[in-house]
This record gives sequence, C-alpha cells and structure tokens, in this order.
Amino acid sequence: MDFDIDMTDELLATTRAVRKRLDLTREVPRAVIEECLELAVQAPTGSNSQTWRWIVVDDADKRRALAQMYRRHADAYLSGAGEQAEQRGDDQTLRVMHSAVYLAEHLHEVPIHVIPCVEGRPPADTPLPMLAGLFGSIFPAVWSFQLALRARGLGSALTTLHLGSEREAAELLGLPDNVLQVALLPVAYTKGTDFKRANRPPVSTVTHWNGW
Amino acid sequence: MDFDIDMTDELLATTRAVRKRLDLTREVPRAVIEECLELAVQAPTGSNSQTWRWIVVDDADKRRALAQMYRRHADAYLSGAGEQAEQRGDDQTLRVMHSAVYLAEHLHEVPIHVIPCVEGRPPADTPLPMLAGLFGSIFPAVWSFQLALRARGLGSALTTLHLGSEREAAELLGLPDNVLQVALLPVAYTKGTDFKRANRPPVSTVTHWNGW
Repeated sequence: MDFDIDMTDELLATTRAVRKRLDLTREVPRAVIEECLELAVQAPTGSNSQTWRWIVVDDADKRRALAQMYRRHADAYLSGAGEQAEQRGDDQTLRVMHSAVYLAEHLHEVPIHVIPCVEGRPPADTPLPMLAGLFGSIFPAVWSFQLALRARGLGSALTTLHLGSEREAAELLGLPDNVLQVALLPVAYTKGTDFKRANRPPVSTVTHWNGW
Repeated sequence: MDFDIDMTDELLATTRAVRKRLDLTREVPRAVIEECLELAVQAPTGSNSQTWRWIVVDDADKRRALAQMYRRHADAYLSGAGEQAEQRGDDQTLRVMHSAVYLAEHLHEVPIHVIPCVEGRPPADTPLPMLAGLFGSIFPAVWSFQLALRARGLGSALTTLHLGSEREAAELLGLPDNVLQVALLPVAYTKGTDFKRANRPPVSTVTHWNGW
C-alpha cells in the first residue's frame, strides 16, 4: 500500500491527550476497544517479548474506585504544577493542567478505563537501560492503541497518577503480583473530531546532529 | 479530516522493526529526518514536559563507534536469547534474533542513527510509577517518529543494547550529565515497502475485562 502522507501525518499530529472533549454520554462498544487492541499488539517489543496485558474496565463501581485513587494523587500534584506554570507564564501547560483537573473530577464518568500492564515486574534496583527496554516494549503499543482510537472518532489520554495507589488498584482488579501497571487511559468518543496540531518550538531547538 | 481506517490501520499494523531490509546503500536526506521529528514532537507528554532531545548521527566515525559499543553487548545477549528461543521452538523470536545479529554486524553501515533522549535524568531510586511517567513521555514520540518514517518508505528498529555503554556514548556525543539516552534507532530507506502484519495470538488472550 502507498500511504497518503497528508493523512498519516494528520493522524500523528492531531492525536492529542483528550480530556474535556471526551463524550461522557455515549457508550463505547467493546468491539471497538478490541479492534484497537488488535492493532496495538502489532507494535514491536524488545526481543519479541510481547509481555503486554490490557485491563479494560467498563464496570461503573470499579471505575468509581479507580477515579478515587486517581484524585487522591491528582489534587496535590495538579494544583502545584498549575501554579508553577502560571508563575512562568506557560499558558499551554496551564491549559493542560486545567484540563487535567476536569479529567480528575469526571474520570468515573468516562465510559472505559484501559490499564496497560507488563507481565514481569522488574526488581526495584533494575538499571535504567533495562527499564528503557521494558517501557519501550509497552508504550509504542499504548500509543498505537491511542492512534487507532483517534482514527475511529475516539479519544484518550495517557495518565500515570493512579500508579501512586498501584497496589490498591491491583487488588481491585485482581492482578497477580508480577504484573506492573504502567498507565490508565480514559477512553470515550470525542465531542467533534477537529483536533489541531499543538504549538511546538521548532524541532531544530531539540535536535543535535552528531553531538550536543 | 475523516481518516481512511484501512490506511491508518495498515500503518499501525505494518510498521515493523526493520533490520535486514534496511537499504545500506541509499543516502537519507537530513530533511526527511527533520520532517519525521516534527511529527514526533506532536506527541503528548506528561504535564506537557516536552523534555525530549534527539541526537541524530550521520557521521561515519561516530556511527562506527556506536556500533562497536552496541556489539559489545549484543554478542552475548543475542546468542543466549537465540538459544532459548530455539529450545522452546519459538520460530518467530528465533527469526527476530537472527535479524538482530545481522543488524549488530551492519549497524555502522546504516546511514542514520537516532538516539532519543530525555533531559532530566531521574535519580537511581526513582519509583516505578514516576519512571512510567518519564518513559511514557518519550516512547510515544519515538514510535510516532518510526510511523512517520514508514509512511515515507523508511524503516527503523527500537534498540536499547548500546545503553550498556551509555556513559561512553554520552562522551562520544558530548551529552550533558543530566541527559538520559533511552534507545538507538538505526534508520534507512527500506528494500521494498511490502511489510506484513505480524502473526500474533488473539488479543483476547491478553485482555482482561474488569479484572484478571
């Protein structure tokens, strides 16, 4: 297949972290989630390990419990980060923080929570290079999942705040001890699909040819 | 824009880790790399941190030095992992390992090496949830970069073996101490573009609705 680069670029450039524009009133069929996960697991993994596990939560009580854990960590973090952004006049980050506060307040209402996991929890003293291999074998699949959602009119956001209560979440979901949760993605249809590119500094400011 | 789902699915499902089919004879213009990086940095990051840095190496001597570091760790690792795959009759992983041995032997010949980095090295005792936030803010961008390459007829593979010599690589490239390398991606045009979906177990075997 020849790719239409305008279209594939549009997909990569406009798959934003969606929070305020998640449609909390529209149900998401399980089949759509499964279709996007089929695409997610096409992503490559280190040494072909494929150690991903996907916990998908549509049960209302469990979503409420996860949202409570999330808020426990969100409240302190987001107000601090918001104040810092305000002080340095960083309007983009300030908008992100306001949007994150909205998400924290409404997380239990988002119809689907997806918790991507890695089977094979690394020991606490695992060196960073090994962890790069581990996380580099799950986040490409997670991002593929988010891109596949976007192409279908759904949105999501990669969050990690609930991980502060990871053990409690593991108990709620019956996860074995060797399973590492890496994120929580609220998933819903989006209100409209006209997402725009983000305003970014020129890539030349963060690119170094042959050395710093 | 309405997305053509067949096309976006094809992009997500056929962006493979490319090693043997990297075209070692064809030059890659810098502009193509920069175009793909512009798309990469559209990916979201935790708290809008955007702490990515991209080291792009086309200097032949530096690629040779990086390839030497890579091989130092590849030789022992790949032969062990290959033997294990052979013993358990895992042909797919065995093919990956043979392909990885090929890459190790030819890495210096691949026209471009890209080393994605995070500015802000986490302390050694950083808890896993914080690290999930850190790696979850760089690997989506890395995967977007690889997807953007694929749409343009180029290929890449996410490798982490050279990180075993991270300090030596940092010296070679003049990286400040607070910069964390997370991968090395060999990048080249591909020989042909007819990549296929990988053979995967049904996603139902790794998906859990509402609990394990």
